[in-house]
Amino acid sequence: MWPGLRLIRRQLSTLAAARGVVYEKHGEPSQVLRLQKLEVTSPSEYEVRVKMLAAPINPSDINMIQGTYAFLPQLPAVGGNEGVGVVAEVGNHVSSVRPGDWVIPVDAGLGTWRTEGVFNEAALMRVPSDISVEIAATLSVNPCTAYRLLSDYEILRPGDSIIQNASNSGVGQSVIQIATSLGITTINIVRDRPDLPNLMQRLHDLGADHVITEEQLRKPEMKDLFKTCPRPRLALNCVGGKSTTEMLRHLDYGGTMVTYGGMAKQPVTIPVSALIFKNIKLCGFWVTQWKRDRQQNREEISKMIRDLCDLVRRGRLVPPPCYEWPLEDFKQALRDAQTPFLSRKQILMMQ
Amino acid sequence: MWPGLRLIRRQLSTLAAARGVVYEKHGEPSQVLRLQKLEVTSPSEYEVRVKMLAAPINPSDINMIQGTYAFLPQLPAVGGNEGVGVVAEVGNHVSSVRPGDWVIPVDAGLGTWRTEGVFNEAALMRVPSDISVEIAATLSVNPCTAYRLLSDYEILRPGDSIIQNASNSGVGQSVIQIATSLGITTINIVRDRPDLPNLMQRLHDLGADHVITEEQLRKPEMKDLFKTCPRPRLALNCVGGKSTTEMLRHLDYGGTMVTYGGMAKQPVTIPVSALIFKNIKLCGFWVTQWKRDRQQNREEISKMIRDLCDLVRRGRLVPPPCYEWPLEDFKQALRDAQTPFLSRKQILMMQ
Repeated sequence: MWPGLRLIRRQLSTLAAARGVVYEKHGEPSQVLRLQKLEVTSPSEYEVRVKMLAAPINPSDINMIQGTYAFLPQLPAVGGNEGVGVVAEVGNHVSSVRPGDWVIPVDAGLGTWRTEGVFNEAALMRVPSDISVEIAATLSVNPCTAYRLLSDYEILRPGDSIIQNASNSGVGQSVIQIATSLGITTINIVRDRPDLPNLMQRLHDLGADHVITEEQLRKPEMKDLFKTCPRPRLALNCVGGKSTTEMLRHLDYGGTMVTYGGMAKQPVTIPVSALIFKNIKLCGFWVTQWKRDRQQNREEISKMIRDLCDLVRRGRLVPPPCYEWPLEDFKQALRDAQTPFLSRKQILMMQ
Repeated sequence: MWPGLRLIRRQLSTLAAARGVVYEKHGEPSQVLRLQKLEVTSPSEYEVRVKMLAAPINPSDINMIQGTYAFLPQLPAVGGNEGVGVVAEVGNHVSSVRPGDWVIPVDAGLGTWRTEGVFNEAALMRVPSDISVEIAATLSVNPCTAYRLLSDYEILRPGDSIIQNASNSGVGQSVIQIATSLGITTINIVRDRPDLPNLMQRLHDLGADHVITEEQLRKPEMKDLFKTCPRPRLALNCVGGKSTTEMLRHLDYGGTMVTYGGMAKQPVTIPVSALIFKNIKLCGFWVTQWKRDRQQNREEISKMIRDLCDLVRRGRLVPPPCYEWPLEDFKQALRDAQTPFLSRKQILMMQ
């Protein structure tokens, strides 16, 4: 067959098959999202055509659709910010990836809930394809956040300890695993719930040294815990409100609390004396901004992905428990993603 | 006269004359403080006998007597932590000061509300005697705090701006003057009060660019202010509660808020989004700890004192408005020091 015709036929078949979960205005995801056909053209010089393999539903994806997130894409937009795909075709000047490579988005806003898309080469980053689709699809937000939280704020050595709340979140589970691989003791706060023993066992299985409830955190017996491990130099906060103030009380002199989420939708409150006399430092972390600041020079990002994939291969970093959904069932997947205490990551499988 | 006898007579006359404001237990200053005779011996090898010239009453002195401060001296104790004295006599091995030198305490807890005392050489620091007694007596807490707040947290260049609350405090006035000498724009928040126009004029005379009330801080018109100067990279907080949260809103992306006091006796409350998406950092400063961390190597302390005295000589740093009291009247002086809105520093004059 004439090669040009084959190309056109392939494009036509691609065009026919491509679908994505699209929103034209902000609102409740169940109201504004629709599965629809997407036009996928052949990549131009610096573009890459990617067949998506899998994409998770993260809380920030939902906030973005609701219009409450700090960064909002132009509308209409395809939902989803994280995921993994396989390179199907590259433009003439593309040098960083080849057909068959696995790629993940570098930045938020790519729109990953789709079967296929054409993206700028600069928007993508190669990942090894010898790791599972589930971990590759969920590597760039939660494990990356956990990696940075443990790397960038306090110098932690084996035997040191850290404390975190929302320990069952995607970031929380990654923190447990990465800290354990570094020999760092983790004190993990969770909300009380019906299946607490199961949850505690699961976090212990990941390497958690101590798992305590918000209620236990407030009890005087907490001091007994610090007979067995040093006071944490680092506190990781994804909640806000009382949970955070209580956690802060146990931080070591001169320690740092990094806030990366606000699940309780309440501010962080800190006694003046903790700042002045305990020399506690507070700051925030947003993985999207961290990556944006390194778009031009990606060495730090590459090193992080290499380190994380190395942990994955050694079995030290496993994907969160997942439910996998065909793209058609995105509405049920979104409903489950918004249900508290399900403790499973909802992942859309594209192929 | 036989020189030894002269020495003994001088010592005896010293011993007879020395008096100090002493407390034997913690409580309300008016209840627990007494003026009493103090024994002053001749200095041993590494000691220095100092005749105190003047000592201010600072809020932390009162908290220390009440027993609520983070650092408490052994009891019985002489009140006061700041002041200036003149060296009367030195031990054989003393090398850093000579009779006639002016000295100030390096650390809190010296007990400066006294006419005379014998101290370890290491507890004292020489200051030039060509500055006024009032500024020398009040140099080591407020101007030093202001100097560090402006030096250690953000790199500030001429044209940059800072924002502070409690701008009429001792630290606040020093911040205005030091920042002005560096070409930094100051936005100064004060509480509304009967003599507001006078206060505003006085702060403007010190170099304040903008003086606004807590009420004005909450108004939408605040955005007009930022048409004339950049958003502050540094916020200095001595209040807590709502004042602090409001001030924080105006901080530039990535800016730092340093808390050095908590006049409102309320915690600092910060929205999670300010930490994550505005990358705001919070920390605390305590000048006592800062100096303690540099007891062994005082180069940084010496440079700060040199710089501050240089500002004093150039008329760029003036002492706060003072009331001077003889030591006998310490109770009235303390009463005035605890009266709100008096806007004057109470100083005990010893000689």
